Amino acid sequence: MRIVSASQFDGKRSVDSGTMEQQEAVQAILLAVRKRGDEALREYTERFDRVRLQQFRVSEAEFTEASDQVTPEVKAALVEAAANIRDFHERQVRQSWFTTKESGTLLGQIIRPLKRVGLYVPGGTAAYPSSVLMNAIPAKIAEVPEVVITTPPGADGKINPAILVAAQIAGVDEIYKVGGAQAVAALTYGTEQIRAVDKIVGPGNIYVALAKREVFGLVSIDMVAGPSEIAVLADDTANPRYVAADLLSQAEHDPMSAAILVTPSQVLADAVAAEVERQLADLPRKEIAEAAVRDHGAILLVNDLDEGFAVINRIAPEHLEIMIDDPFAHLGKVENAGAIFLGPYSSEPVGDYFAGSNHVIPTNGTARFSSPLSVDDFIKKSSVVSYSKRDLRENGHKIITLAEQEGLAAHGRAIAERLRDFDSEK
Amino acid sequence: MRIVSASQFDGKRSVDSGTMEQQEAVQAILLAVRKRGDEALREYTERFDRVRLQQFRVSEAEFTEASDQVTPEVKAALVEAAANIRDFHERQVRQSWFTTKESGTLLGQIIRPLKRVGLYVPGGTAAYPSSVLMNAIPAKIAEVPEVVITTPPGADGKINPAILVAAQIAGVDEIYKVGGAQAVAALTYGTEQIRAVDKIVGPGNIYVALAKREVFGLVSIDMVAGPSEIAVLADDTANPRYVAADLLSQAEHDPMSAAILVTPSQVLADAVAAEVERQLADLPRKEIAEAAVRDHGAILLVNDLDEGFAVINRIAPEHLEIMIDDPFAHLGKVENAGAIFLGPYSSEPVGDYFAGSNHVIPTNGTARFSSPLSVDDFIKKSSVVSYSKRDLRENGHKIITLAEQEGLAAHGRAIAERLRDFDSEK
Repeated sequence: MRIVSASQFDGKRSVDSGTMEQQEAVQAILLAVRKRGDEALREYTERFDRVRLQQFRVSEAEFTEASDQVTPEVKAALVEAAANIRDFHERQVRQSWFTTKESGTLLGQIIRPLKRVGLYVPGGTAAYPSSVLMNAIPAKIAEVPEVVITTPPGADGKINPAILVAAQIAGVDEIYKVGGAQAVAALTYGTEQIRAVDKIVGPGNIYVALAKREVFGLVSIDMVAGPSEIAVLADDTANPRYVAADLLSQAEHDPMSAAILVTPSQVLADAVAAEVERQLADLPRKEIAEAAVRDHGAILLVNDLDEGFAVINRIAPEHLEIMIDDPFAHLGKVENAGAIFLGPYSSEPVGDYFAGSNHVIPTNGTARFSSPLSVDDFIKKSSVVSYSKRDLRENGHKIITLAEQEGLAAHGRAIAERLRDFDSEK
Repeated sequence: MRIVSASQFDGKRSVDSGTMEQQEAVQAILLAVRKRGDEALREYTERFDRVRLQQFRVSEAEFTEASDQVTPEVKAALVEAAANIRDFHERQVRQSWFTTKESGTLLGQIIRPLKRVGLYVPGGTAAYPSSVLMNAIPAKIAEVPEVVITTPPGADGKINPAILVAAQIAGVDEIYKVGGAQAVAALTYGTEQIRAVDKIVGPGNIYVALAKREVFGLVSIDMVAGPSEIAVLADDTANPRYVAADLLSQAEHDPMSAAILVTPSQVLADAVAAEVERQLADLPRKEIAEAAVRDHGAILLVNDLDEGFAVINRIAPEHLEIMIDDPFAHLGKVENAGAIFLGPYSSEPVGDYFAGSNHVIPTNGTARFSSPLSVDDFIKKSSVVSYSKRDLRENGHKIITLAEQEGLAAHGRAIAERLRDFDSEK
């Protein structure tokens, strides 16, 4: 793992906006599903997933079958993780509020859940039951009545059983065997078997990402996720084995994943570099992790912790581990990071699977302006204005002044229409 | 104004995604500003705004000059409106939170303001000081340290004085004389004179909208606003003059604006139709309002109020006025509406200018999943996990189970690395 001075590190990463061919393919799929509904879904599913389906919805029998295929240990761990996720996200729930004035005016903000949400779940080896929990539970805590999953079937027409088990634990209402851009199209426009949703969340390949970007505005979408990232800020007190293991835990996700150590300690830098080599040797996903470490990994030497925090804030990492003496005393220096893990035992996989915080976190520097997935992503707000006669009589002419200044006479007249009646009442 | 049965009303509206020429023009502008910075800004400003500028930033002298050009009445109304907007939005402020467990684990969520936000303000006749207040004040309540405005200059190189006055009242930090897609480019990539921002908000023409859509992901953007809309749900108790005036107040915005009355009362429907004609007659923006009413206006007859609410929820209007007997008793029937105005005195312009709620509200049916602009739009959240040794010892093997089920061995090893040390301590 290369060790460089932080001042030489650029770290700019780019957004994959797909090739022209990919963009055109996605547009063709969106159009076909919009026009021909389920028949188009059937054709694409046959072409891309190599199975012809009549019914897309997963049946009760399939849920039962899946449940038998998942070990009790995995089930128990999923159930306990789900409880922790519920506990964390219940703390994010907000209430509608009102304020009343002595003048008779009432102002407020109503919070309501979205009505129907679609969760895209990748298939194959990237089928992660933990992601089902992380996406579906906040929606259910927000009281979204209809949470539906779309996920590509295998060539046998089946869904990964752990996905189905996780969906049941999370309280998902419907699951459909459709993947790719065609699933995004079905969720956006609706088909005979799949009703349209208000929002689409969840990760996917480049076709899914492009399709989500394309339908943005017709439905709401979550962020377009990039490759995973971890940055560790550590000093002499950190255990190099832990630091190396945590860096590799993100590096194994994708050859594009970034794993960065920021440290003022040359000793730690050398030790972590050696540990990464040692731990890489027998990693099952060695090729992926090795490429990630080589192409997007770095150990950045800084002069002191303050420079370290400045570097971290420039990177705005998805995951930030702080393994330094008294980390809470430095927490206020973090400006940009999606999730912050403090101390030697807060290994990032603790957050991926179990602690309860969400593992859907902004990547690629977008923690500058984005937030982890939360209950907030599944609600909508409405303002409420009940203006009193007394307030309108008092303030009506000011409103007319502002409307006329902007050249919007009809705005002013809507107020004047009332004021005239008030005058005639006198 | 046409009167039709609600069952015959489609009301589908489309999103203007621009012509191919417009899209290509926007991409060329983005690229030029990205590569050549201020020099490209100068060229585009000369071409589109017909003025050559050396310095883009508005000077102190220009603020003073502007202040002298705005009447005391307008200033006083803006100051009072700003106070109301502050009062409303302060109620939206959220706190960071933590929860501690007896096991030593701490979990939480930190709320921080974005660091730098750009507000696009249209020029010419669409320069609305009220919009400056509505966009900038929530950012300042969120404690964004740097709020900057870009707005196109007139051919004399000046900015609308009321915009500058409103910006000072709202506490805006910097104003630059740049408009169009080139302003969005400057805010996204930064130039010599204009530093890049984390988020761009504010309305604009089709070029601004396309540019915002294009840079989405590099910076955060607010919703892409469509033409304004109002829906009024009214019964026999409503005053047809008020209903008509309020419908026209939105119709005057844009020939594409929608103004819809939903009512079970044929008597009211006829009276409002007549009133709209009467009030249209001498409206300064008569042509615009007339086109809006003709092309996007309708009076929809329903069998009863419950059907009326169902129609409203399908429309998901930006503005909803409810002028019926005991409106609060029916408030819970509204599922989709950006801002809800109750009773005869809550004329929609009250909310546009003065009550304190935000007037940046989701259009075009997106109130199904979007919310009015709020303090939430100017903050970001970070999760915090400080996991205890005791919890890791207790739960580590469950985390490993879940990681291995997903085929992510390095995730499991990061945990196992710690568990091994715990075992050796025994």
